[in-house]
Amino acid sequence: MSKIKRTEISTLGEFCLIDKLTKGFELKNRSSIKGIGDDAAIMNYNGFKTVVSTDLLVEGIHFDLAYFPLRHLGFKAVIVNLSDIYAMNAIPKQITVSMALSNRFSVEALEEIYFGIKTACDAYGVDLVGGDTTSSKSGLVLSVTALGVGEDDKLTYRSGAKPGDIICVTGDLGASYLGLQLLERETQLLKADPNIKIDLEGQKYIVGRFLKPEARKDIIEIFHKAGLKPTAMMDISDGLASELFHIAKRSKVGILIEEDKVPMHPDSQQMALKFNVDPINAALNGGEDYELLFTINPKDLEVVKYMPDISIIGEVKPLVEGVKMLSTGGNTFDLKAQGWKHF
Amino acid sequence: MSKIKRTEISTLGEFCLIDKLTKGFELKNRSSIKGIGDDAAIMNYNGFKTVVSTDLLVEGIHFDLAYFPLRHLGFKAVIVNLSDIYAMNAIPKQITVSMALSNRFSVEALEEIYFGIKTACDAYGVDLVGGDTTSSKSGLVLSVTALGVGEDDKLTYRSGAKPGDIICVTGDLGASYLGLQLLERETQLLKADPNIKIDLEGQKYIVGRFLKPEARKDIIEIFHKAGLKPTAMMDISDGLASELFHIAKRSKVGILIEEDKVPMHPDSQQMALKFNVDPINAALNGGEDYELLFTINPKDLEVVKYMPDISIIGEVKPLVEGVKMLSTGGNTFDLKAQGWKHF
Repeated sequence: MSKIKRTEISTLGEFCLIDKLTKGFELKNRSSIKGIGDDAAIMNYNGFKTVVSTDLLVEGIHFDLAYFPLRHLGFKAVIVNLSDIYAMNAIPKQITVSMALSNRFSVEALEEIYFGIKTACDAYGVDLVGGDTTSSKSGLVLSVTALGVGEDDKLTYRSGAKPGDIICVTGDLGASYLGLQLLERETQLLKADPNIKIDLEGQKYIVGRFLKPEARKDIIEIFHKAGLKPTAMMDISDGLASELFHIAKRSKVGILIEEDKVPMHPDSQQMALKFNVDPINAALNGGEDYELLFTINPKDLEVVKYMPDISIIGEVKPLVEGVKMLSTGGNTFDLKAQGWKHF
Repeated sequence: MSKIKRTEISTLGEFCLIDKLTKGFELKNRSSIKGIGDDAAIMNYNGFKTVVSTDLLVEGIHFDLAYFPLRHLGFKAVIVNLSDIYAMNAIPKQITVSMALSNRFSVEALEEIYFGIKTACDAYGVDLVGGDTTSSKSGLVLSVTALGVGEDDKLTYRSGAKPGDIICVTGDLGASYLGLQLLERETQLLKADPNIKIDLEGQKYIVGRFLKPEARKDIIEIFHKAGLKPTAMMDISDGLASELFHIAKRSKVGILIEEDKVPMHPDSQQMALKFNVDPINAALNGGEDYELLFTINPKDLEVVKYMPDISIIGEVKPLVEGVKMLSTGGNTFDLKAQGWKHF
């Protein structure tokens, strides 16, 4: 018997793996406009664009029910998908929710999850239109697919950045990652000594950013009102550094950001220091921020300047210049993309 | 501390649970035409209908890798979703595939799954446009969403059956269930004695129906060519009896089928007897046939009669007559819907 070849998934990066697996898949239908490689896929049905995104949340990987309230989990499972649709400069309209769960979950537990799903649907004006519920042998798995509509002249891809464009992010970065670190540490302490009193009172901001993120519907609405179309856009789910590499790769450009321009909340900076993490590392590689990273033509700078909650963090460069950061100390470093976090 | 109420999921039926969880969700967007309660959801974007279906396949629940080849698993995960789109009398065009898997799976294992996915995409002319791959602590979970297009005057729901309509099914029923029973028995024997030689040679038909089902694209194409529109339609995934109850409930009608008209393959009949199962029970409650169950106006009988691979099994009755079967022995029985199989 010949030996079967075995390559560990961990030896490939996430994106290398996806490239490998989806090689040979070609778009055959005229209605398939954009497939794998952006925040969402795009279909053209009768001239109108449908945008589709899907995400899987897995217990023990993306969340630990020891600290993740079920209603927040339902909410977040929807938000992470809506964020992908907004990142295409499109408007989400429908979701489907599939769930696998074991009999350790009660009907009341399921109702909590659906309460969170409904809260998100109501807040973002989307409809739950379908799904599948089945059992699992152990953990909880939530799979959400979001559908949205986009207009031809508004849809924004990762591939449109040009040298000279200005790089912007919304909100602040790193808080979600630090909130998760805090929750995990406290959960470990609690497991070691159940009598311990956990006090997250002073850390509502960072914990809230992890447990109850919002998608930046508000920013997309501001763009539409102002008639602004970014040249490239994506949401920050894997961390700023990783996303900058996506923009660079798809747009075939270089990137230069400035360390002291990367927006962080004071609570995040303090918590990073408590964890002996350089705050900028939390902002670059933390992930799960669900903020928008986008580039604009310099002529739009005057418009963006007056928009709320947007920071200008750098400039798009020619491809040869690579993906770099100018540090607070005045040195220029190569940025590193995050690997395949979950394997 | 007050006691938290706990209701076991198993105390509710599948459809009761879904009704309970999705109560209070209302369709808010004009583009949301049909939500939960049919094989697929329907969206109206600019006058054109988009049809969406999603299904989750969970290791240990829907398949056991001891006997389920990975490439067949990838193929089947696509097929079960395409079947839902065809059951709306629509044409699937795109799929997204999300996967959670542990590091016990190698890259080669993933490639096998994707080989199956690609084989299905090629055979049915659909495009893979997106997805999400993540890790899990233990089992493999596959979540597929299919998108298709339908025309207003062709889309077919569960709700359109009228008393007097004729009830038809495609292909034959029960084989998939019996194939699964056989595979499970042989796997148990093999676990008990690894030296045993398993011979499925004579059972290719029923094993193939479970491991490599096809969706009835051919039938939908025949309908379209003939200009035939069923009055109601759905695919048979949970078993004929359960699906008849769906049609009855959504169409507010009664059903009468005849036992000796329910199509079965000779191999299925023989295997049922070997397992001491009444063959009709395998056909009624087996499930995973992915055949089409549909009703037609009697005026279309002459057209349907000459179509290949279609059996007429009964008649739609007024609601008060219930859901019944006329047995081979000449007695009329109430049919029973299957419960929540997986909990």
